[in-house]
Order: sequence, then structure tokens, then C-alpha cells
Amino acid sequence: MIPSFTHIQEAHQRISPFIVRTPVLHSEAINKMLNTCLFFKCENFQNTGSFKLRGASNAILSLDEDSAQKGVATHSSGNHAQAVAYAAQKRNIPAYIVMPTNAPKIKIEGVKEYGGQIFFCEPTLAAREKTAEEVIAKTGATFVHPFNDYRIIAGQASCAKELIEEVKMLDIIVCPVGGGGLLSGTALSTHHLLPNTQVIAAEPALADDAFRSFQSGKIEPVLSTATIADGLRTSLGEKTLDIMRKYVNRVILAKEESIIKAMRLIWERLKIVIEPSCAVPLAAIMDDTTDFFQGKSIGVILTGGNVDLDKLPWQQ
Amino acid sequence: MIPSFTHIQEAHQRISPFIVRTPVLHSEAINKMLNTCLFFKCENFQNTGSFKLRGASNAILSLDEDSAQKGVATHSSGNHAQAVAYAAQKRNIPAYIVMPTNAPKIKIEGVKEYGGQIFFCEPTLAAREKTAEEVIAKTGATFVHPFNDYRIIAGQASCAKELIEEVKMLDIIVCPVGGGGLLSGTALSTHHLLPNTQVIAAEPALADDAFRSFQSGKIEPVLSTATIADGLRTSLGEKTLDIMRKYVNRVILAKEESIIKAMRLIWERLKIVIEPSCAVPLAAIMDDTTDFFQGKSIGVILTGGNVDLDKLPWQQ
Repeated sequence: MIPSFTHIQEAHQRISPFIVRTPVLHSEAINKMLNTCLFFKCENFQNTGSFKLRGASNAILSLDEDSAQKGVATHSSGNHAQAVAYAAQKRNIPAYIVMPTNAPKIKIEGVKEYGGQIFFCEPTLAAREKTAEEVIAKTGATFVHPFNDYRIIAGQASCAKELIEEVKMLDIIVCPVGGGGLLSGTALSTHHLLPNTQVIAAEPALADDAFRSFQSGKIEPVLSTATIADGLRTSLGEKTLDIMRKYVNRVILAKEESIIKAMRLIWERLKIVIEPSCAVPLAAIMDDTTDFFQGKSIGVILTGGNVDLDKLPWQQ
Repeated sequence: MIPSFTHIQEAHQRISPFIVRTPVLHSEAINKMLNTCLFFKCENFQNTGSFKLRGASNAILSLDEDSAQKGVATHSSGNHAQAVAYAAQKRNIPAYIVMPTNAPKIKIEGVKEYGGQIFFCEPTLAAREKTAEEVIAKTGATFVHPFNDYRIIAGQASCAKELIEEVKMLDIIVCPVGGGGLLSGTALSTHHLLPNTQVIAAEPALADDAFRSFQSGKIEPVLSTATIADGLRTSLGEKTLDIMRKYVNRVILAKEESIIKAMRLIWERLKIVIEPSCAVPLAAIMDDTTDFFQGKSIGVILTGGNVDLDKLPWQQ
């Protein structure tokens, strides 16, 4: 069942000992440049460096004691893996993380740091799923999906809830979309707290599967993984597409060069480290050629800050 | 007269419409790594990107109306120039900024953005002083010194005041030292609010003039400008040396490679953009071979975030 606002409130309370109430920042210079009033919710400051901890904590803390003792498992090369490992460590249960052999070293070290047990596999989705199934068969661990799960969605919803509680009034909230967990949670919290506020999904034009899925009503595949926004190369799930079709107003697209420009602008003006996926909402706002965003009060969710500091996109 | 705590409180109140009350961040990972409890006061989030706005605002807001109308002047290639331009713009008076022809483009653009009128000169101290004198003779503007001025010192003191008001108890506060304005202010606020807390200055080993001045009791020259911490290549002034000798406990030094390591650690773990000078206190703590900092609660002032994102020190 799609999480009610009571579910979201319960999730928020449940995860509050594990998460940081992240700050909301703004920049006079960016506002002047774009003639908008932007409020950035900074999940790059979240524990483990991304919003993923909200959903993973809620899923892991929702497990009954018997299941929990057998541990949790997931397959991920990114922020979800670190979030599952961290939340499991805090609950003092095992985390089995399947990672492709080509996962970035920094993410592998992050999982190890939080006590996750890593199982390497070939870098294909089939190999990841097969290895995860084997690990689960052997250990009895519970699989924690990165997005297509109502406990995950209810956890991610706490992010927009905090943003709205702090800023109070917003005309628009723009949220990046990969698998759609954060977007679904954002749309649900906004629907309950600010029913007249528009929720807009932002996606790289090079990975426009959510844009196409939103139109067609079925899950469209990602056709290219060429976008620099590596967190957004994922297709939607059935649950997230359903919520998106019900509660999201539209999907806007960002050009690759705008993503890099927006990322650098946030580093320079907000003085924070964010990963490329975070910059997609600001980039899509910059790419908009209508007056839709002009003079509006806009919440933007910055999803994470786990980036390789040796390779910055504007240097390549 | 050395600012009293009443002067500091008045300064803090005076500048409060111009400045941001910057956040205090911490990192579980850095604390675990160093066996300390570090609280980072993040002046990289200050308006104009550095703490310099605190002192410049206080000096500019303290001017009587007649003097103010004639404007303010300074010579600086760094953060002080932007701070003076910004504060003058907010008071709606002219700012005349003398900058060396080789000043970084980003700093020149910053001054222009805040409405400062720039006068270029040869990149020598003599040329800077001469040009500033000429501008002042012509305009009647008031010179705003970057550090050796009690109004500047009282303004900078508001930073440690905020840190102490937020964290309440600290065993030690570590502050970088260039000209000594921030250090003097930090020492004064700490002396009044936490008299048993040690104030320690941190300096690059390659620019150890404050270390030598603290020992000899007279202003020792900077012998090399080779340090990457470009904000700390300045000698002390008489007022700042006097306060330092009275209220600072000691000076510790940081190796260049540690400064780069500490800077990267802060970017990776706190997810914030800081300039190299900011990393000197953490670097000096990392370089300490005694158990002095072990288990201690330590405030660290991160001074600014104006850094060239095309040239990061760990990439060179």
C-alpha cells in the first residue's frame, strides 16, 4: 500500500537516531542569476554522504528481531550499498553487499568502513542478482531493494518533509529521478504537507527513461549510460512509477553540459561538495526556456556528495 | 585599546544584518581517525566566502556618516578585498580596492560583483601602498586595514563567540594565523567566555613568522611565500602580536603535505569546499606527535572557501 502520511511520520521518527537533519542552504548569487528563490536541501551532509540512508534505515529498523538477526543483503555499486552497511552496523546485524568487480574503490572502502561483508561479482545485472540470491539462500538475509519498496519510499519521504518543515512555503519542489524512490517520497510528503505545490522530476536528457515512462505509463528502459549523473542511470520500478504518475506534475530534462555547469556553480557558490547527479535539478531549471521558474520559490533536493576528487567533470 | 567583551558584543550585534551565523559541522570519521572531538566552524559559508566580512563590516559600520559618504579603501588581492566591497555596497558607499595586476581573476570578479572600484598596480607592497595613498588623497576615503585594527579584531571575534555559544564547552580552539586578526579576535572571545580553554595558533611550517614572532616578541618577517596556504603568507601587526602574546597559548606548525591531506580529508568527509589556509589547523593537529590533542574537545575555525576549482592541490 502506498505509504500514508502517518507511515511517513512513523518512518521519520524511527530513523531519527540514525540520520542527520541536514541543513537547507541558499545563495544570493544563484538566485540573482536565475531570478528565482532556491532552497537547497543538502543530503550530501547526510551520514554515509547521501539521502539513501533514510530509506535503508527505515527498511532495516522495520524488520522484526528474528529476520534482523539473519542480516540484510543488497546489490549496489553506489550510495545504497554504503547506506545498508551503515544502518545494519547501527542495528548490530550483518550486511551482505554484492558489488560488481568494477565498482569505484571509494565505494568499496565505504562499505568496508561500515562493516559490510562484500561479495564481488561480474559487472552485469544478471550476475548481481544471481550472487545476491545465493547469499540470501545461504544466510537467510532479507533483501533491501534500493527504491521499489514502500519502506524505502517512506524513509526517503522524510527528506522533503524536513525541507517543507523548515522553509514552510514553496511553489515548486524539484527532485532528481533515477529509480524513483526519493522522487516518490518527495511527491508523497509534498502532497500531504503542501498540496498546491508542484513536484517536478529532473533527469539527464541522455537518460530520459523516466520522462518516457511518465508519458507511456510503463517502465521504459534506460537506453544509454553515457550521462555523467551516474546515480540516475536506473529504470523506475512499478511502485515508484505508480506514485510518480499519481503525484508528480512533470519531468524536465537537463543537458550534459548544463549538469557540469550547475555542479560547478553549486561548488563555487554554496561551497559544498556534491556529486553530478545532484546538479541535475538546477541544470534542468537553467535549461528551461520558458518563464515557468521565474520569481518562484523552489525547493531543490541535493542528493549526495560521494564524488571522486581526483576526477572532476569540468577538468576532463 | 584592546577590545573589551562589551566591544565584541556590540560589534557582533552591529554586523548581524550583514553576516550569516555559519554552521558548526563535525565528522564521526575524522574524530575516530584522530581520537578527538572536533567542531568545525564553517566560515566558508560566510557571505563573500570568508570570515573577513565580519571585521570589514564592523569597521565600515562603525564609520560616522560624513566619513562613510567619502567611501572606504583597501589594498588586497584576497578575501579582504571582497569583504570590504560587499560591506560598502550594503552600506551604500563607495569602495576603492587596490589590487595587484597578478591578482587571481576570480577575486577580481568577486570585487566587481560587489560593486567595488578597482585600481590596478604593480604586484609589490610598495606599489600597493602608494596607489592606495593616492586614491585616499583624491577621494577622502577611509583606509580599512585587513587585520591590524581593533574594529577589525572585534568583528573577527564574533566568529569564536558564535562557536562557543553553540558548542558551549571546548578544551582547545585552534585558529590559523596570517596577519593575526582572526586569531586575536578568537583569543579575546575565548578569554572572556571560556577562560580555561587553550587558544592555539596554527601556521604552515614554510611560513612560520608568527611562531618566531611569538617567541621573540617582535614582528618577524615572512621568509618564504612557498606555502600553498596563500591566506597565511602575511606578517603580524603590532596590535595582533600584542594580543597574541597576552592571550594565545602557543603556535603549532603544519607540513605542506599535511595541509593538502587535511584539506582533502575535509572535502571528503565534511563535503565542503575550503581553501588551503583553512586546512592548516587540522594539518597541525595531525602532525602533532604528542598525546596533547587526544580525547580533547577542539574547536577549529575554517576560514574560507574561495578556491580555484580548476587547480586542486592534490592534483598537481
